[in-house]
Amino acid sequence: MWGHTRSAETARHDRSLHEPEVEEISNVIGAYIARIRDLEGDKRVRYVLIFKNHGEGAGAHTISHSISQLVALPVTPRAVKTKLMIARGYFALKERCIYCDVIEQELKSRKRLIAENENFVVFAPFASRFPFEMAVFPKFHSSAFSRIGATQGNNLALILRDVLQKLDQKVGGPSYNLSLHDRPFLRPRGDYWNTIEEDFHWHIEILPQVTRITGFEWASGFFYNPVAPEVAARCLSLEPPSE
Amino acid sequence: MWGHTRSAETARHDRSLHEPEVEEISNVIGAYIARIRDLEGDKRVRYVLIFKNHGEGAGAHTISHSISQLVALPVTPRAVKTKLMIARGYFALKERCIYCDVIEQELKSRKRLIAENENFVVFAPFASRFPFEMAVFPKFHSSAFSRIGATQGNNLALILRDVLQKLDQKVGGPSYNLSLHDRPFLRPRGDYWNTIEEDFHWHIEILPQVTRITGFEWASGFFYNPVAPEVAARCLSLEPPSE
Repeated sequence: MWGHTRSAETARHDRSLHEPEVEEISNVIGAYIARIRDLEGDKRVRYVLIFKNHGEGAGAHTISHSISQLVALPVTPRAVKTKLMIARGYFALKERCIYCDVIEQELKSRKRLIAENENFVVFAPFASRFPFEMAVFPKFHSSAFSRIGATQGNNLALILRDVLQKLDQKVGGPSYNLSLHDRPFLRPRGDYWNTIEEDFHWHIEILPQVTRITGFEWASGFFYNPVAPEVAARCLSLEPPSE
Repeated sequence: MWGHTRSAETARHDRSLHEPEVEEISNVIGAYIARIRDLEGDKRVRYVLIFKNHGEGAGAHTISHSISQLVALPVTPRAVKTKLMIARGYFALKERCIYCDVIEQELKSRKRLIAENENFVVFAPFASRFPFEMAVFPKFHSSAFSRIGATQGNNLALILRDVLQKLDQKVGGPSYNLSLHDRPFLRPRGDYWNTIEEDFHWHIEILPQVTRITGFEWASGFFYNPVAPEVAARCLSLEPPSE
Protein backbone atom coordinates (compact mmCIF):
# COMPACT_ATOMS: atom_id res chain seq x y z
CA MET A 1 0.00 0.00 0.00
CA TRP A 2 1.55 3.28 -0.98
CA GLY A 3 -1.24 5.70 -1.87
CA HIS A 4 -3.70 6.80 0.77
CA THR A 5 -6.24 9.62 0.73
CA ARG A 6 -8.70 10.66 3.38
CA SER A 7 -11.70 12.77 2.45
CA ALA A 8 -13.59 14.88 4.92
CA GLU A 9 -17.16 14.45 3.80
CA THR A 10 -18.67 17.60 5.16
CA ALA A 11 -17.54 21.01 6.28
CA ARG A 12 -19.21 20.35 9.62
CA HIS A 13 -17.32 18.20 12.13
CA ASP A 14 -20.27 16.72 13.98
CA ARG A 15 -21.92 15.06 11.00
CA SER A 16 -21.69 11.56 9.60
CA LEU A 17 -22.17 10.33 6.01
CA HIS A 18 -25.92 9.97 6.44
CA GLU A 19 -26.40 13.36 8.02
CA PRO A 20 -25.09 15.66 5.29
CA GLU A 21 -27.26 16.87 2.48
CA VAL A 22 -27.52 14.66 -0.60
CA GLU A 23 -25.47 17.28 -2.43
CA GLU A 24 -22.55 16.77 -0.04
CA ILE A 25 -22.58 12.97 -0.53
CA SER A 26 -22.85 13.54 -4.25
CA ASN A 27 -19.74 15.73 -4.08
CA VAL A 28 -17.82 13.00 -2.22
CA ILE A 29 -18.84 10.47 -4.90
CA GLY A 30 -17.71 12.89 -7.60
CA ALA A 31 -14.38 13.42 -5.87
CA TYR A 32 -13.73 9.67 -5.65
CA ILE A 33 -14.63 9.17 -9.31
CA ALA A 34 -12.16 11.91 -10.32
CA ARG A 35 -9.50 10.36 -8.07
CA ILE A 36 -10.00 6.85 -9.51
CA ARG A 37 -9.88 8.14 -13.08
CA ASP A 38 -6.65 9.92 -12.30
CA LEU A 39 -5.09 6.86 -10.62
CA GLU A 40 -6.10 4.72 -13.59
CA GLY A 41 -3.37 6.50 -15.54
CA ASP A 42 -0.74 5.36 -13.04
CA LYS A 43 0.67 1.99 -14.11
CA ARG A 44 1.77 1.09 -10.57
CA VAL A 45 -1.84 0.97 -9.34
CA ARG A 46 -3.89 -2.16 -9.89
CA TYR A 47 -6.76 -1.63 -7.45
CA VAL A 48 -8.39 1.26 -5.64
CA LEU A 49 -10.10 0.51 -2.35
CA ILE A 50 -12.60 2.99 -0.92
CA PHE A 51 -13.98 2.46 2.55
CA LYS A 52 -15.57 4.19 5.47
CA ASN A 53 -15.46 3.22 9.14
CA HIS A 54 -18.28 4.69 11.19
CA GLY A 55 -18.19 4.43 14.97
CA GLU A 56 -15.79 2.89 17.44
CA GLY A 57 -17.02 -0.65 16.82
CA ALA A 58 -15.92 -0.30 13.19
CA GLY A 59 -12.38 0.76 14.06
CA ALA A 60 -12.95 4.48 13.45
CA HIS A 61 -10.52 6.58 15.44
CA THR A 62 -11.79 9.99 14.44
CA ILE A 63 -15.08 10.86 15.96
CA SER A 64 -14.96 14.63 15.51
CA HIS A 65 -15.76 14.53 11.80
CA SER A 66 -16.93 12.12 9.15
CA ILE A 67 -14.27 10.75 6.81
CA SER A 68 -13.90 8.01 4.24
CA GLN A 69 -10.64 6.67 2.83
CA LEU A 70 -9.14 5.71 -0.49
CA VAL A 71 -6.18 3.33 -0.74
CA ALA A 72 -4.35 2.72 -4.03
CA LEU A 73 -2.90 -0.79 -4.13
CA PRO A 74 -0.25 -2.29 -6.42
CA VAL A 75 -2.09 -5.65 -6.30
CA THR A 76 -5.67 -6.89 -6.46
CA PRO A 77 -6.61 -7.95 -2.90
CA ARG A 78 -7.38 -11.60 -2.20
CA ALA A 79 -10.96 -10.89 -1.13
CA VAL A 80 -11.60 -9.09 -4.43
CA LYS A 81 -9.96 -11.91 -6.41
CA THR A 82 -12.25 -14.48 -4.79
CA LYS A 83 -15.32 -12.50 -5.91
CA LEU A 84 -13.91 -12.01 -9.40
CA MET A 85 -13.20 -15.73 -9.76
CA ILE A 86 -16.72 -16.70 -8.72
CA ALA A 87 -18.25 -14.12 -11.09
CA ARG A 88 -16.05 -15.33 -13.95
CA GLY A 89 -16.93 -18.97 -13.28
CA TYR A 90 -20.65 -18.20 -13.30
CA PHE A 91 -20.34 -16.19 -16.51
CA ALA A 92 -18.40 -19.01 -18.20
CA LEU A 93 -21.22 -21.38 -17.30
CA LYS A 94 -24.31 -19.22 -17.88
CA GLU A 95 -23.12 -16.33 -20.05
CA ARG A 96 -24.82 -13.99 -17.61
CA CYS A 97 -23.58 -11.70 -14.83
CA ILE A 98 -24.17 -13.45 -11.47
CA TYR A 99 -24.98 -10.15 -9.79
CA CYS A 100 -27.54 -9.18 -12.46
CA ASP A 101 -29.25 -12.51 -11.78
CA VAL A 102 -29.21 -11.90 -8.01
CA ILE A 103 -30.58 -8.36 -8.44
CA GLU A 104 -33.38 -9.66 -10.67
CA GLN A 105 -34.30 -12.28 -8.06
CA GLU A 106 -34.22 -9.79 -5.20
CA LEU A 107 -36.36 -7.27 -7.09
CA LYS A 108 -38.83 -10.02 -7.92
CA SER A 109 -39.15 -11.59 -4.45
CA ARG A 110 -38.83 -8.24 -2.55
CA LYS A 111 -38.36 -10.23 0.71
CA ARG A 112 -34.93 -8.79 1.39
CA LEU A 113 -35.42 -5.44 -0.32
CA ILE A 114 -34.51 -2.36 1.73
CA ALA A 115 -34.58 0.49 -0.77
CA GLU A 116 -34.84 1.14 -4.50
CA ASN A 117 -34.73 4.08 -6.87
CA GLU A 118 -34.40 4.58 -10.61
CA ASN A 119 -30.77 3.40 -10.80
CA PHE A 120 -29.99 1.60 -7.54
CA VAL A 121 -31.22 -1.15 -5.27
CA VAL A 122 -30.30 -2.01 -1.67
CA PHE A 123 -31.06 -5.40 -0.17
CA ALA A 124 -30.03 -7.63 2.74
CA PRO A 125 -27.87 -10.32 1.07
CA PHE A 126 -29.29 -13.86 1.17
CA ALA A 127 -26.09 -15.05 2.92
CA SER A 128 -25.68 -11.99 5.18
CA ARG A 129 -22.65 -12.41 7.44
CA PHE A 130 -23.74 -9.67 9.82
CA PRO A 131 -27.06 -8.56 11.30
CA PHE A 132 -28.50 -5.78 9.09
CA GLU A 133 -25.83 -6.23 6.41
CA MET A 134 -26.72 -4.28 3.25
CA ALA A 135 -25.62 -4.52 -0.39
CA VAL A 136 -25.98 -1.52 -2.69
CA PHE A 137 -26.05 -2.36 -6.41
CA PRO A 138 -26.58 -0.36 -9.59
CA LYS A 139 -29.60 -1.87 -11.37
CA PHE A 140 -27.85 -1.36 -14.71
CA HIS A 141 -24.92 -3.66 -15.45
CA SER A 142 -21.59 -1.94 -14.84
CA SER A 143 -18.20 -3.32 -13.83
CA ALA A 144 -16.61 0.01 -12.90
CA PHE A 145 -17.89 2.48 -10.32
CA SER A 146 -15.95 5.35 -11.94
CA ARG A 147 -18.05 5.10 -15.12
CA ILE A 148 -21.30 6.31 -13.55
CA GLY A 149 -22.77 9.61 -14.72
CA ALA A 150 -23.94 12.65 -12.79
CA THR A 151 -27.61 11.60 -12.46
CA GLN A 152 -26.58 8.10 -11.38
CA GLY A 153 -24.13 9.60 -8.88
CA ASN A 154 -26.94 11.70 -7.46
CA ASN A 155 -29.24 8.68 -7.21
CA LEU A 156 -26.47 6.77 -5.42
CA ALA A 157 -26.11 9.65 -2.95
CA LEU A 158 -29.89 9.63 -2.39
CA ILE A 159 -30.09 5.90 -1.69
CA LEU A 160 -26.98 5.89 0.53
CA ARG A 161 -28.39 8.69 2.67
CA ASP A 162 -31.70 6.86 2.82
CA VAL A 163 -30.36 3.46 3.98
CA LEU A 164 -27.79 4.90 6.39
CA GLN A 165 -30.58 6.97 7.92
CA LYS A 166 -32.67 3.81 8.21
CA LEU A 167 -29.78 2.00 9.89
CA ASP A 168 -29.47 4.87 12.32
CA GLN A 169 -33.18 5.18 13.08
CA LYS A 170 -34.25 1.52 13.06
CA VAL A 171 -31.18 -0.17 14.54
CA GLY A 172 -30.07 2.57 16.90
CA GLY A 173 -27.06 3.98 15.06
CA PRO A 174 -24.65 1.02 15.11
CA SER A 175 -21.02 1.20 14.02
CA TYR A 176 -20.54 0.05 10.45
CA ASN A 177 -17.91 -0.56 7.78
CA LEU A 178 -18.78 0.54 4.27
CA SER A 179 -16.67 -0.49 1.29
CA LEU A 180 -16.68 -0.27 -2.49
CA HIS A 181 -16.18 -3.51 -4.43
CA ASP A 182 -14.97 -2.45 -7.84
CA ARG A 183 -13.18 -4.21 -10.68
CA PRO A 184 -9.38 -3.81 -10.79
CA PHE A 185 -7.88 -1.53 -13.43
CA LEU A 186 -7.73 -3.31 -16.77
CA ARG A 187 -4.06 -3.69 -17.60
CA PRO A 188 -3.05 -5.87 -20.51
CA ARG A 189 -1.70 -9.12 -19.07
CA GLY A 190 -1.51 -12.62 -20.43
CA ASP A 191 -3.44 -14.33 -17.66
CA TYR A 192 -6.18 -11.73 -17.54
CA TRP A 193 -9.67 -12.38 -18.78
CA ASN A 194 -11.56 -10.34 -21.30
CA THR A 195 -15.05 -10.98 -19.93
CA ILE A 196 -14.48 -8.97 -16.73
CA GLU A 197 -16.54 -6.03 -17.98
CA GLU A 198 -19.43 -8.40 -18.61
CA ASP A 199 -19.03 -10.79 -15.65
CA PHE A 200 -18.39 -8.36 -12.77
CA HIS A 201 -20.83 -5.83 -11.30
CA TRP A 202 -19.55 -3.20 -8.89
CA HIS A 203 -21.31 -2.74 -5.55
CA ILE A 204 -21.07 -1.32 -2.06
CA GLU A 205 -21.18 -3.41 1.12
CA ILE A 206 -22.40 -1.97 4.41
CA LEU A 207 -21.45 -4.19 7.36
CA PRO A 208 -22.97 -3.05 10.66
CA GLN A 209 -20.94 -4.14 13.67
CA VAL A 210 -23.53 -4.94 16.30
CA THR A 211 -22.02 -8.30 17.27
CA ARG A 212 -18.38 -9.38 17.64
CA ILE A 213 -16.57 -11.92 15.55
CA THR A 214 -15.64 -15.02 17.52
CA GLY A 215 -13.12 -17.82 17.20
CA PHE A 216 -15.72 -19.73 15.19
CA GLU A 217 -15.66 -17.15 12.38
CA TRP A 218 -11.86 -16.78 12.46
CA ALA A 219 -11.19 -20.50 12.32
CA SER A 220 -13.85 -21.42 9.77
CA GLY A 221 -14.51 -18.45 7.52
CA PHE A 222 -18.19 -19.20 8.21
CA PHE A 223 -20.31 -16.52 9.86
CA TYR A 224 -22.87 -17.01 12.56
CA ASN A 225 -25.60 -14.39 12.10
CA PRO A 226 -28.53 -14.39 14.52
CA VAL A 227 -30.67 -12.05 12.35
CA ALA A 228 -32.17 -13.50 9.14
CA PRO A 229 -31.85 -11.13 6.15
CA GLU A 230 -35.65 -11.12 5.68
CA VAL A 231 -36.08 -9.93 9.27
CA ALA A 232 -33.31 -7.34 8.83
CA ALA A 233 -34.96 -6.02 5.65
CA ARG A 234 -38.33 -5.78 7.37
CA CYS A 235 -36.75 -3.90 10.29
CA LEU A 236 -34.98 -1.49 7.98
CA SER A 237 -37.84 -0.87 5.56
CA LEU A 238 -40.30 1.88 6.28
CA GLU A 239 -43.10 -0.15 4.78
CA PRO A 240 -43.33 -3.93 5.31
CA PRO A 241 -42.34 -5.77 2.13
CA SER A 242 -45.15 -7.15 -0.02
CA GLU A 243 -45.12 -10.91 0.12
CA MET B 1 -23.54 -27.08 11.96
CA TRP B 2 -25.43 -29.61 13.99
CA GLY B 3 -23.18 -30.71 16.86
CA HIS B 4 -22.16 -28.23 19.52
CA THR B 5 -20.55 -28.79 22.90
CA ARG B 6 -19.50 -26.26 25.50
CA SER B 7 -16.98 -27.22 28.15
CA ALA B 8 -16.67 -25.43 31.42
CA GLU B 9 -12.94 -25.40 31.99
CA THR B 10 -12.83 -25.09 35.72
CA ALA B 11 -15.09 -25.73 38.67
CA ARG B 12 -14.61 -22.11 39.69
CA HIS B 13 -16.66 -19.49 37.85
CA ASP B 14 -14.29 -16.55 38.16
CA ARG B 15 -11.35 -18.14 36.39
CA SER B 16 -10.19 -18.05 32.79
CA LEU B 17 -8.17 -20.60 30.79
CA HIS B 18 -4.86 -19.17 31.96
CA GLU B 19 -5.86 -19.04 35.60
CA PRO B 20 -6.63 -22.69 36.31
CA GLU B 21 -3.97 -25.13 37.31
CA VAL B 22 -2.09 -26.91 34.52
CA GLU B 23 -3.93 -30.07 35.55
CA GLU B 24 -7.28 -28.44 34.78
CA ILE B 25 -6.16 -27.35 31.29
CA SER B 26 -4.74 -30.82 30.76
CA ASN B 27 -8.14 -32.28 31.64
CA VAL B 28 -9.88 -30.01 29.11
CA ILE B 29 -7.40 -31.12 26.42
CA GLY B 30 -8.03 -34.75 27.33
CA ALA B 31 -11.80 -34.23 27.14
CA TYR B 32 -11.54 -32.70 23.67
CA ILE B 33 -9.33 -35.52 22.43
CA ALA B 34 -11.85 -38.08 23.66
CA ARG B 35 -14.69 -36.12 22.02
CA ILE B 36 -12.87 -35.87 18.66
CA ARG B 37 -12.01 -39.57 18.68
CA ASP B 38 -15.64 -40.36 19.34
CA LEU B 39 -16.91 -38.03 16.59
CA GLU B 40 -14.41 -39.56 14.16
CA GLY B 41 -16.63 -42.65 14.17
CA ASP B 42 -19.62 -40.60 12.97
CA LYS B 43 -19.70 -40.53 9.18
CA ARG B 44 -21.75 -37.31 9.06
CA VAL B 45 -18.89 -35.31 10.61
CA ARG B 46 -16.07 -34.05 8.42
CA TYR B 47 -14.47 -31.43 10.64
CA VAL B 48 -14.33 -30.60 14.34
CA LEU B 49 -13.76 -26.98 15.27
CA ILE B 50 -12.61 -26.11 18.78
CA PHE B 51 -12.47 -22.50 19.85
CA LYS B 52 -12.49 -20.22 22.84
CA ASN B 53 -13.65 -16.60 23.06
CA HIS B 54 -12.17 -14.72 25.99
CA GLY B 55 -13.53 -11.29 26.89
CA GLU B 56 -16.21 -9.05 25.43
CA GLY B 57 -14.01 -7.88 22.53
CA ALA B 58 -13.81 -11.51 21.37
CA GLY B 59 -17.57 -12.02 21.31
CA ALA B 60 -17.74 -13.91 24.63
CA HIS B 61 -21.14 -13.53 26.21
CA THR B 62 -20.48 -15.48 29.36
CA ILE B 63 -18.22 -13.72 31.76
CA SER B 64 -19.12 -15.63 34.92
CA HIS B 65 -17.06 -18.69 34.00
CA SER B 66 -14.49 -19.80 31.49
CA ILE B 67 -15.72 -21.96 28.61
CA SER B 68 -14.50 -23.22 25.29
CA GLN B 69 -16.60 -24.73 22.51
CA LEU B 70 -16.55 -27.64 20.09
CA VAL B 71 -18.58 -27.61 16.87
CA ALA B 72 -18.91 -30.72 14.68
CA LEU B 73 -19.34 -29.75 11.02
CA PRO B 74 -20.56 -31.80 8.04
CA VAL B 75 -18.11 -29.91 5.77
CA THR B 76 -14.51 -28.71 5.91
CA PRO B 77 -14.67 -24.91 6.38
CA ARG B 78 -13.34 -22.65 3.64
CA ALA B 79 -10.66 -21.13 5.89
CA VAL B 80 -9.34 -24.62 6.70
CA LYS B 81 -9.43 -25.63 3.01
CA THR B 82 -7.31 -22.62 2.05
CA LYS B 83 -4.63 -23.66 4.56
CA LEU B 84 -4.78 -27.28 3.43
CA MET B 85 -4.39 -26.29 -0.23
CA ILE B 86 -1.34 -24.15 0.49
CA ALA B 87 0.24 -26.91 2.59
CA ARG B 88 -0.42 -29.48 -0.12
CA GLY B 89 1.00 -27.23 -2.83
CA TYR B 90 4.18 -26.66 -0.83
CA PHE B 91 4.56 -30.37 -0.15
CA ALA B 92 4.08 -31.20 -3.84
CA LEU B 93 6.89 -28.77 -4.64
CA LYS B 94 9.38 -29.42 -1.82
CA GLU B 95 8.37 -32.79 -0.34
CA ARG B 96 8.47 -31.15 3.07
CA CYS B 97 5.81 -29.90 5.50
CA ILE B 98 5.58 -26.10 5.18
CA TYR B 99 4.91 -25.73 8.90
CA CYS B 100 7.95 -27.86 9.86
CA ASP B 101 10.04 -25.50 7.73
CA VAL B 102 8.52 -22.43 9.39
CA ILE B 103 9.06 -23.89 12.87
CA GLU B 104 12.69 -24.67 12.07
CA GLN B 105 13.23 -21.10 10.87
CA GLU B 106 11.53 -19.57 13.90
CA LEU B 107 13.54 -21.75 16.31
CA LYS B 108 16.74 -20.79 14.51
CA SER B 109 16.16 -17.01 14.28
CA ARG B 110 14.39 -16.75 17.68
CA LYS B 111 13.30 -13.19 16.77
CA ARG B 112 9.61 -13.97 17.01
CA LEU B 113 9.85 -16.72 19.65
CA ILE B 114 7.56 -16.35 22.67
CA ALA B 115 7.81 -19.71 24.46
CA GLU B 116 9.20 -23.19 23.98
CA ASN B 117 9.23 -26.50 25.83
CA GLU B 118 10.13 -30.11 25.01
CA ASN B 119 7.18 -30.65 22.62
CA PHE B 120 5.78 -27.25 21.74
CA VAL B 121 6.76 -23.84 20.44
CA VAL B 122 4.87 -20.53 20.45
CA PHE B 123 5.84 -17.66 18.18
CA ALA B 124 4.43 -14.45 16.73
CA PRO B 125 3.71 -15.34 13.08
CA PHE B 126 5.81 -13.50 10.49
CA ALA B 127 2.61 -12.25 8.83
CA SER B 128 0.69 -11.58 12.06
CA ARG B 129 -2.76 -10.13 11.29
CA PHE B 130 -3.28 -8.85 14.84
CA PRO B 131 -1.08 -7.20 17.45
CA PHE B 132 0.32 -9.92 19.75
CA GLU B 133 -1.01 -12.76 17.59
CA MET B 134 0.44 -16.12 18.66
CA ALA B 135 0.80 -19.49 16.94
CA VAL B 136 1.20 -22.66 19.03
CA PHE B 137 2.78 -25.60 17.18
CA PRO B 138 3.90 -29.09 18.18
CA LYS B 139 7.63 -29.31 17.37
CA PHE B 140 7.09 -32.90 16.19
CA HIS B 141 5.27 -33.34 12.90
CA SER B 142 1.62 -34.29 13.41
CA SER B 143 -1.46 -33.67 11.28
CA ALA B 144 -4.02 -34.57 13.95
CA PHE B 145 -4.39 -32.96 17.37
CA SER B 146 -6.25 -35.99 18.72
CA ARG B 147 -3.18 -38.19 18.29
CA ILE B 148 -1.08 -36.52 21.00
CA GLY B 149 -0.12 -38.52 24.08
CA ALA B 150 -0.52 -37.75 27.77
CA THR B 151 2.94 -36.16 28.24
CA GLN B 152 2.47 -34.05 25.12
CA GLY B 153 -0.99 -33.02 26.33
CA ASN B 154 0.53 -31.94 29.62
CA ASN B 155 3.27 -29.97 27.84
CA LEU B 156 0.58 -28.29 25.71
CA ALA B 157 -1.32 -27.33 28.88
CA LEU B 158 1.91 -25.93 30.36
CA ILE B 159 2.76 -23.76 27.35
CA LEU B 160 -0.84 -22.53 26.91
CA ARG B 161 -1.00 -21.43 30.54
CA ASP B 162 2.40 -19.77 30.14
CA VAL B 163 1.59 -17.70 27.02
CA LEU B 164 -1.94 -16.76 28.11
CA GLN B 165 -0.46 -15.56 31.39
CA LYS B 166 2.08 -13.54 29.43
CA LEU B 167 -0.68 -12.01 27.31
CA ASP B 168 -2.52 -11.10 30.48
CA GLN B 169 0.48 -9.65 32.30
CA LYS B 170 2.36 -7.96 29.45
CA VAL B 171 -0.52 -6.70 27.29
CA GLY B 172 -3.04 -5.97 30.04
CA GLY B 173 -5.44 -8.89 29.65
CA PRO B 174 -6.92 -8.24 26.21
CA SER B 175 -9.86 -10.14 24.74
CA TYR B 176 -8.76 -12.97 22.47
CA ASN B 177 -10.04 -15.71 20.18
CA LEU B 178 -8.28 -19.05 20.39
CA SER B 179 -8.87 -21.78 17.82
CA LEU B 180 -7.58 -25.20 16.88
CA HIS B 181 -6.55 -25.76 13.26
CA ASP B 182 -6.70 -29.48 12.71
CA ARG B 183 -6.90 -31.72 9.67
CA PRO B 184 -10.37 -32.91 8.63
CA PHE B 185 -11.35 -36.51 9.32
CA LEU B 186 -9.89 -38.78 6.68
CA ARG B 187 -12.81 -40.24 4.79
CA PRO B 188 -12.16 -42.19 1.60
CA ARG B 189 -13.09 -39.90 -1.30
CA GLY B 190 -11.94 -39.76 -4.90
CA ASP B 191 -10.74 -36.16 -4.87
CA TYR B 192 -8.95 -36.42 -1.54
CA TRP B 193 -5.22 -36.44 -1.25
CA ASN B 194 -3.10 -39.06 0.48
CA THR B 195 -0.28 -36.74 1.55
CA ILE B 196 -2.42 -34.86 4.09
CA GLU B 197 -0.82 -36.63 7.06
CA GLU B 198 2.59 -35.55 5.77
CA ASP B 199 1.75 -32.08 4.43
CA PHE B 200 -0.43 -30.67 7.22
CA HIS B 201 0.64 -29.79 10.78
CA TRP B 202 -2.03 -28.99 13.38
CA HIS B 203 -1.72 -25.82 15.43
CA ILE B 204 -3.51 -23.36 17.65
CA GLU B 205 -4.03 -19.69 16.81
CA ILE B 206 -4.44 -17.06 19.51
CA LEU B 207 -5.79 -13.78 18.11
CA PRO B 208 -5.87 -10.95 20.66
CA GLN B 209 -8.51 -8.34 19.88
CA VAL B 210 -6.91 -5.07 20.90
CA THR B 211 -7.80 -3.21 17.69
CA ARG B 212 -10.96 -3.34 15.57
CA ILE B 213 -11.24 -4.60 12.03
CA THR B 214 -12.04 -1.84 9.56
CA GLY B 215 -13.54 -1.59 6.08
CA PHE B 216 -10.02 -1.99 4.73
CA GLU B 217 -9.69 -5.53 6.12
CA TRP B 218 -13.25 -6.53 5.13
CA ALA B 219 -12.90 -5.32 1.56
CA SER B 220 -9.38 -6.57 0.90
CA GLY B 221 -8.68 -9.59 3.10
CA PHE B 222 -5.43 -7.79 3.95
CA PHE B 223 -4.73 -6.90 7.58
CA TYR B 224 -3.27 -3.71 8.89
CA ASN B 225 -1.27 -4.51 12.03
CA PRO B 226 0.52 -1.67 13.79
CA VAL B 227 2.66 -4.01 15.97
CA ALA B 228 5.50 -5.89 14.24
CA PRO B 229 5.70 -9.58 15.31
CA GLU B 230 9.29 -9.09 16.53
CA VAL B 231 8.12 -6.28 18.82
CA ALA B 232 5.15 -8.37 20.00
CA ALA B 233 7.45 -11.33 20.78
CA ARG B 234 9.82 -9.08 22.72
CA CYS B 235 6.91 -7.63 24.71
CA LEU B 236 5.54 -11.06 25.51
CA SER B 237 8.85 -12.76 26.34
CA LEU B 238 10.17 -12.62 29.83
CA GLU B 239 13.72 -12.45 28.57
CA PRO B 240 14.62 -10.41 25.51
CA PRO B 241 15.35 -12.70 22.53
CA SER B 242 19.00 -13.27 21.67
CA GLU B 243 19.86 -11.58 18.40
